[in-house]
Amino acid sequence: MTADLPLLDNPRSERVRQVTALGRRAVRRRTGRFLVEGPQAVRELLVHACDHAESVYLTAEAADRHADLVEEAAAGRVRLQHCTPQVLAAMADTPHPQGVVAVAREVGVDAARALEAAGRSGYVVLLANVRDPGNAGTVIRGADAFGAAAVLVSDASVDVYNPKVVRSTVGALFHLPVSTGTPLPDLLRLCKEAGLRLLAADGTGQTMLPDADLSTPHAWVLGNEAQGLGEDVLRACDQAVAVPIVRVESLNLAMAATVCLHASAAARRSA
Amino acid sequence: MTADLPLLDNPRSERVRQVTALGRRAVRRRTGRFLVEGPQAVRELLVHACDHAESVYLTAEAADRHADLVEEAAAGRVRLQHCTPQVLAAMADTPHPQGVVAVAREVGVDAARALEAAGRSGYVVLLANVRDPGNAGTVIRGADAFGAAAVLVSDASVDVYNPKVVRSTVGALFHLPVSTGTPLPDLLRLCKEAGLRLLAADGTGQTMLPDADLSTPHAWVLGNEAQGLGEDVLRACDQAVAVPIVRVESLNLAMAATVCLHASAAARRSA
Repeated sequence: MTADLPLLDNPRSERVRQVTALGRRAVRRRTGRFLVEGPQAVRELLVHACDHAESVYLTAEAADRHADLVEEAAAGRVRLQHCTPQVLAAMADTPHPQGVVAVAREVGVDAARALEAAGRSGYVVLLANVRDPGNAGTVIRGADAFGAAAVLVSDASVDVYNPKVVRSTVGALFHLPVSTGTPLPDLLRLCKEAGLRLLAADGTGQTMLPDADLSTPHAWVLGNEAQGLGEDVLRACDQAVAVPIVRVESLNLAMAATVCLHASAAARRSA
Repeated sequence: MTADLPLLDNPRSERVRQVTALGRRAVRRRTGRFLVEGPQAVRELLVHACDHAESVYLTAEAADRHADLVEEAAAGRVRLQHCTPQVLAAMADTPHPQGVVAVAREVGVDAARALEAAGRSGYVVLLANVRDPGNAGTVIRGADAFGAAAVLVSDASVDVYNPKVVRSTVGALFHLPVSTGTPLPDLLRLCKEAGLRLLAADGTGQTMLPDADLSTPHAWVLGNEAQGLGEDVLRACDQAVAVPIVRVESLNLAMAATVCLHASAAARRSA
């Protein structure tokens, strides 16, 4: 197992500092780069978005255990760098990166381009000022699992390149178009112009999920965890749809979204 | 707004230490007590399981903002203790307990008793060595939302009284019977004896969720995040059921469980 470059062994070196700094949003924004941690996410990056992969850092132990990553990186001419466990720990956001991190260039596409895919394959997911990294990542993962055409993330939402979001998507970020940086009103307008019906996922919605028509192109609009969707957004939507529940007042955002996206996938299968 | 007792203002006092110590499993096990943090969870405790509530600790600000908690505690004769924000921070496991924590006595019931409810209302959820606190909490919350009769937690699973689990359930722990401490093989046997069909939620299952018969009493068996369900457990189950997904290899445990439990609730509605 050989690396392209000599062993990186100084956790305080400038190179390591530059990678570590990608944990901060300002640095990600300035450089257009972000961190991908753990073998599964790095594998998805190399397999599905190799042209966005810049460098892969891994310990000798991880290189032995994940020989496929070494091969994928070589095949994709991605810079491969062996480093000590101390260096890897200094770079990573998580305490247990399992010996592998990568630096990638942002994978986002603009909203109009993300929406081009929707006409063909049915539905998109719109994150309307979702703030929790775990929720955002889980929704992106669900969008991927249940065949959404794209995910549109409003500019006031959590940064999807936040390491916590990237981790929660477990590579889904590299599978489907994800658009970031557009204000919410513009996203709503673009969806309408693309002919999508806007369905607000809303625990107080009048339409129950089993009664919602999911057979035509639509966008699931998912709101902020604390405030939900504002009046303006609800007015802009064609329908407010609730997941029927038996006992508690509300599911969390990721749970409600998972059920809604699963229903969209089921509607597509039966169409 | 008056409290029963004088202001607690020394974060190093023995009383505060005893509460803080409930963050440790060994102490919870020895005392049979656990921490409940944040106004929503404490409210659910007082409203739904008041006889298990021992003490409520809150800051003056939280007492003003959540007057209902003060009233509920008084009505239930639960000891109410005002404390400084420093004391509250020392007690809580979370960095933002929003000014309220409570100490409660374990709410668990034994497995046989939890299963008595299943005959009537259709289905239970069995956590088979689930280790991640967030997943366990989310599943308990989903079980509550989607009307499960009970949750059975195998003895090798995460401690449901772990503060992270309690937080993720957002009070659901106080709504439905939760059984802990029974070994997995005994839980599987008890479910069978209670006449429940055992459905393994398994991404590689042969039966797709829409084809599974959820109209008769059943138990969803949910496995460990890393290892899934072992061969022994799969053999003990009547059917292995997969959530149909389009693109990625697996949903996380909580997402798959949410979709399965939603399907069980839907089957009960249409029955």
